[in-house]
Amino acid sequence: MDAIARLLRPRSVAVIGASADPTKTAGRPMAYLKKLGFAGEVFPVNPKVDSIDGLPCYKDVASLPAVPDVGIVLLGAERAHQAVQELAAQGCPAAIVLASGYAETGQAGAARQQQLLQAAGRMRILGPNTIGLVNLTDHIMLSATGALEMDSFPVGSIGVVSQSGGILGSLLSRAAARGIGLSKLISTSNEVDLELSDFIDHLADDPATRVIALYIETVRHPQKFRQACLKAARMGKPVVAFKIGRSEAGALAAVSHTGAMAGADRMYDALFRDVGVIRARTFADLLDIPAALATGRSLHGQRVAILTSTGGAGTLVSDELGLAGFATPAPDEATASTLRALNSGSEAVLDRNPIDVTLAGLRPDLLRGAIRALLASPSYDALVIVVGSSGLARPELMAGAIEDCLPDSDKPVLAYVSPHAPAVGKLLTEKGVPAYAAAESISAAVAAMHQVARRPACAPLLPEPQIPETGPLPTGALDEAQAKQLFGRFGLPCTAERVVHTPEQAMAAATELGGPVVLKILSAHIAHKSDVGGVAVGVAVQALPERMAQMRQRVQLSTGQAPDTFLVQEMVQGGVELILGMHRDALGTAIMLGMGGVTAELLQDTAMRWVAGPAGLSRSEALSMAQALKTWPLLVGYRGRPHADVEALVDAVVAFSRMAGQLGEHLLEAEINPLFVLPQGQGVRAADGVAVLR
Amino acid sequence: MDAIARLLRPRSVAVIGASADPTKTAGRPMAYLKKLGFAGEVFPVNPKVDSIDGLPCYKDVASLPAVPDVGIVLLGAERAHQAVQELAAQGCPAAIVLASGYAETGQAGAARQQQLLQAAGRMRILGPNTIGLVNLTDHIMLSATGALEMDSFPVGSIGVVSQSGGILGSLLSRAAARGIGLSKLISTSNEVDLELSDFIDHLADDPATRVIALYIETVRHPQKFRQACLKAARMGKPVVAFKIGRSEAGALAAVSHTGAMAGADRMYDALFRDVGVIRARTFADLLDIPAALATGRSLHGQRVAILTSTGGAGTLVSDELGLAGFATPAPDEATASTLRALNSGSEAVLDRNPIDVTLAGLRPDLLRGAIRALLASPSYDALVIVVGSSGLARPELMAGAIEDCLPDSDKPVLAYVSPHAPAVGKLLTEKGVPAYAAAESISAAVAAMHQVARRPACAPLLPEPQIPETGPLPTGALDEAQAKQLFGRFGLPCTAERVVHTPEQAMAAATELGGPVVLKILSAHIAHKSDVGGVAVGVAVQALPERMAQMRQRVQLSTGQAPDTFLVQEMVQGGVELILGMHRDALGTAIMLGMGGVTAELLQDTAMRWVAGPAGLSRSEALSMAQALKTWPLLVGYRGRPHADVEALVDAVVAFSRMAGQLGEHLLEAEINPLFVLPQGQGVRAADGVAVLR
Repeated sequence: MDAIARLLRPRSVAVIGASADPTKTAGRPMAYLKKLGFAGEVFPVNPKVDSIDGLPCYKDVASLPAVPDVGIVLLGAERAHQAVQELAAQGCPAAIVLASGYAETGQAGAARQQQLLQAAGRMRILGPNTIGLVNLTDHIMLSATGALEMDSFPVGSIGVVSQSGGILGSLLSRAAARGIGLSKLISTSNEVDLELSDFIDHLADDPATRVIALYIETVRHPQKFRQACLKAARMGKPVVAFKIGRSEAGALAAVSHTGAMAGADRMYDALFRDVGVIRARTFADLLDIPAALATGRSLHGQRVAILTSTGGAGTLVSDELGLAGFATPAPDEATASTLRALNSGSEAVLDRNPIDVTLAGLRPDLLRGAIRALLASPSYDALVIVVGSSGLARPELMAGAIEDCLPDSDKPVLAYVSPHAPAVGKLLTEKGVPAYAAAESISAAVAAMHQVARRPACAPLLPEPQIPETGPLPTGALDEAQAKQLFGRFGLPCTAERVVHTPEQAMAAATELGGPVVLKILSAHIAHKSDVGGVAVGVAVQALPERMAQMRQRVQLSTGQAPDTFLVQEMVQGGVELILGMHRDALGTAIMLGMGGVTAELLQDTAMRWVAGPAGLSRSEALSMAQALKTWPLLVGYRGRPHADVEALVDAVVAFSRMAGQLGEHLLEAEINPLFVLPQGQGVRAADGVAVLR
Repeated sequence: MDAIARLLRPRSVAVIGASADPTKTAGRPMAYLKKLGFAGEVFPVNPKVDSIDGLPCYKDVASLPAVPDVGIVLLGAERAHQAVQELAAQGCPAAIVLASGYAETGQAGAARQQQLLQAAGRMRILGPNTIGLVNLTDHIMLSATGALEMDSFPVGSIGVVSQSGGILGSLLSRAAARGIGLSKLISTSNEVDLELSDFIDHLADDPATRVIALYIETVRHPQKFRQACLKAARMGKPVVAFKIGRSEAGALAAVSHTGAMAGADRMYDALFRDVGVIRARTFADLLDIPAALATGRSLHGQRVAILTSTGGAGTLVSDELGLAGFATPAPDEATASTLRALNSGSEAVLDRNPIDVTLAGLRPDLLRGAIRALLASPSYDALVIVVGSSGLARPELMAGAIEDCLPDSDKPVLAYVSPHAPAVGKLLTEKGVPAYAAAESISAAVAAMHQVARRPACAPLLPEPQIPETGPLPTGALDEAQAKQLFGRFGLPCTAERVVHTPEQAMAAATELGGPVVLKILSAHIAHKSDVGGVAVGVAVQALPERMAQMRQRVQLSTGQAPDTFLVQEMVQGGVELILGMHRDALGTAIMLGMGGVTAELLQDTAMRWVAGPAGLSRSEALSMAQALKTWPLLVGYRGRPHADVEALVDAVVAFSRMAGQLGEHLLEAEINPLFVLPQGQGVRAADGVAVLR
């Protein structure tokens, strides 16, 4: 058994710095271990006390009667590293360090944290600054969270990893109040050693865990995170993540233009998408979505039946589902006829959806009949039951009636509780019908189920491709011609062009390229050539000498430097202008595709995808980027326009992503702007570009 | 006292069809009247029973000992109209009809509803299909809602009007559970007589009501609604509305192109904006926002201090506030120094925001000191207190400490409760600190407070302008030239142009207009001229005869009809292309301004404003439309472009809105596309347009 498994299920626990007073933080772990009925041995360590709650207290770690599987260190930061060192010396496999005052406080704290790591040697550490962990599956609490003051905790199949201790407590108490069963909760906090991905990896193997919920402040090791999430996917366990720091996105400096259009928060979107992690959009979603996924029920389509006994709330749910793209069609004739046969009262509305079975709230037989009819109907993929105040009179009867019908079908069944009735919601959730007090929660839950259903059951392991021989690479900021040569090496089609210095060379180049050309200055130091008068479009061969002279003059006026090198370039016309770029930050590399032109720039119509490695993006991912653009119709015949060469665009995006994946950290910036996508069969052309290598 | 006031505060109530069984719906109103201690007289009417709960029961309305102020009719739809007629005959001022089976069920029901209205004569009716009303201010319950089974209801200053009876019950029970005090709740439902606006109007005058919350399915009388909301605004009472039917927007057929770009749900946005109604984006917001507004505290800026004893939850709130555009700056030095003097523990974080006063949850004196310092600080406009699990141990102490500080300042103080702790939240809310379990609720609440603060205290009454003499109007679908003449009458500058039939006329017109021109076919029946080859741009004078011939041929090929009338038009170049149109549906008329061009069309970058009457939009509203466009920078010098003539654009939007306001229902469609906005000082030009009049 590895250290992480041992940490989560120790046979013995030493509590270093245990207090005899259970109202103190240092008294809680002992009290909680006992309260939840920990079956193993507990060794309190405290030189000032003889015994705690009937257990003998040891004066130091060295005096322990046996090597504990886990040491919980409750000492302050100034003494914790010593206890850690002593535990490590004994051969203890893992320690939990609760003290704060480490990296979160600044430089001195960071040094203290490093010292802690060194003191641990081969022993694993959870923390510091953690609230510990809670293993509900096995009734083991290694935590000081005040949430454990609650009376009982439903045990279930949702595993939680939180980078905040306070949030762990919040999730634990909120889930318990709603009847949402959890398996394990781990607060990783400062992550000096064990971190997010270690526990995702562990929970992926844990038979008691079916869904993994993550509260993320930062992903410290993106590749490790990716591997752990892919493992969870292979094990068929959905991962749901809520990440904070969304509004700081703007503050994270962006490197290139591409970066400026794509905030770092979007990198998380891209990473999550890459590994099939479902992003919780609100903190509430972090319980709402797993609660639905933990039922194990499958959503095979997007048609939802809403069964209600109260009109207003049914409409509310229907409206919200509609916003999320779900359909709420009226019952088919056979289903309507079955419903009519139930005689559910003269005021029942059976030919519409929400299906208003007025008396169902009061008569369980009727409710049972209606649920069976709707679950059996080929017109629906899921069922939402709206509980109005009439359902509150005898909640067990109603919940029992719903429960009876569940085995008939594996379609998702969820409940919306309209009045304030937490006990009813809890009862329903416990019986396998996740209940919600917000219509937005219902739509988030079914949307997540839909996302899970569309994903292949087992995410494919990406092949590790051979990095092709690319020869020696240039370094530094490349000029346009060099950038295009680089792009060309990776298979990106660029405009035909010649580097020239004299009017004669320019005219010869233009003649060779055939007809009017684009004339540009060539410089690695001027990013916005057109802003300084360094671009002329549609220049006739004969006009080149004069335009070159004019351009030299204008650029000198603007920049103080007279250019001596020019680019003569074929004219590209009739295509759709896109931008193809990349964004790199601490989380990794992403490719960005966006519509070009000044309007699109203001409207930020872009798509991003995380690049996992040298294989780059798949063709289907590349295509999905183009399709994700609101302006996608421009590429496929909008208002009589010619169809663009989407195949060639996909090739270009794949090629660009491979370049970014293969050059890795050598490539600091790269952007093609514009990338012309020509009509079908005519390919694409990179007409301008920048690249910075190191 | 008018009938509505009497309805809400009757001295006597007749309950027609009362049941002696309080578990039946027909037994509830009697039971609830007694439960909440109604001080007036109650007359049950039921021929089958002698007495109900000690009160003598009358056999029919005619036998009542006195004319009741209100009759609650609990009979079914087949008998309700008779009871209504009898009450009216007695001179009863108002009746509440609970029966369903009216307009909501189809045509036969609608006829029954009309019959009910006739039976009422001059008596006012609430309903049918209503759950009644609840007057918490005066402890009068005229309702059958199951929500009244709860034990107690906090009395407060939020008045609720709901078009759904079930939702009324939901709001009542949810508010009670959270300690949110309400004044009156009225379910208007089918609105055969009394409707939404009647009660907004009444609550605007009600001294017990400070904030008005609306649950809206449809606004039946937009102008009446507008007047009622403006009255509430004049009385300084914010109105918050949640409207369902958002996802049906697409289904509501749009009349013109403008309509197609603007769903009917946006009409509600426009209407709400016009009258200063705050739109609740989620159903939860409909209590969350009023709870904050009801404190009467004022938000004077956008800087929020977050005081926490749990790091994770503080960050969550900070992140959400950031997304909503609020700032959470670090404490100024004076404030930080006051905080430091509190000695709040070595782990306290006082130089950042969230301000983490670690021990504050356990020590009320420290909490009090920190709150006082933050409320006094000139760096903050509001305070959010995060309650972690440490605050749960002695909630009264903590709530008391917070309450003590409230009189020091009128800055908003809100609470975020991180663990599941509804009792703590309720306690805080009751003490004047609205408490929330979702960070999104906090940001919605402060955003609404900010919206209220920015609004003039008293909305101005719009002057009723004289409708200018416009002369006889054309009717039917106008051709481009006629449409522009119409626009011109309202002061909209259009391109100079001439209607021509022969090549000679065309050349003469072009010469007069000076230089290359635009040549178009002129027809009221071809909407997309360019799609059929009916537009040529930049045609030289000499080339006109040949282009006319070509155009005639191409249009004939496309449409089967050879055009004989053409338009010769000045060329407009160098401007920004916009679309200016209108949308009309059951809710009224709105003006739409959008960026032109094919990309903008796909990205739907538009702004809408509701037009209240012949005065049209104010200049500042017109300007706000342009500023609301994401592409607004294109008009004000983006990337070295010339500044556009925004003044002239504002004039044009005002003129267009006056045209729509003054022509009213005569104008079925109108759109200018494109409207060229030229560089500063050069004005705007309507270059093409459509109009349909009747």
